[in-house]
Amino acid sequence: MNEFFVELIGMLGAICTTFCFLPQIIKILQTKHARDISLIMYIILTIGVFLWLIYGILIHKWPIILANAVTFIFCAIIVTVKITWENKNNGK
Amino acid sequence: MNEFFVELIGMLGAICTTFCFLPQIIKILQTKHARDISLIMYIILTIGVFLWLIYGILIHKWPIILANAVTFIFCAIIVTVKITWENKNNGK
Repeated sequence: MNEFFVELIGMLGAICTTFCFLPQIIKILQTKHARDISLIMYIILTIGVFLWLIYGILIHKWPIILANAVTFIFCAIIVTVKITWENKNNGK
Repeated sequence: MNEFFVELIGMLGAICTTFCFLPQIIKILQTKHARDISLIMYIILTIGVFLWLIYGILIHKWPIILANAVTFIFCAIIVTVKITWENKNNGK
């Protein structure tokens, strides 16, 4: 297959797996509910995305750096909001 | 940095961003609650992971194929369970 289309598929995949977290952030901020979300999942995901970010820097690949920097921010927001709601609900 | 350690960082990142979905699957199956989870997020994520899978096949990279094949299955489970609980709760 043509090189351009191969790279296009990879880029579309990166855009989807990066910006998919926005609807989740909007949902928990609107509903102020995050109980069903697994904190363990997002902590492991945040660590994993951070490792990908370091990997991208080490191999000098901008697409990997950019995608994972944005995803890292989104995941850190979800972890922070999740912990905040949980503390609030537990009356801390 | 030594080539081995660079690849190790990438592999650890891939393992984290692949298996992080397991705690979320276990949580929603145990609690039978998925209301706070964004269905839109997981549909976009599942599409994105599928595109990454196609990309990995096209560039013949086993790590990308393997990580995204497993993640695709996990995301498809979450989407299915989320839709099932939602239908059940809406009395369909």
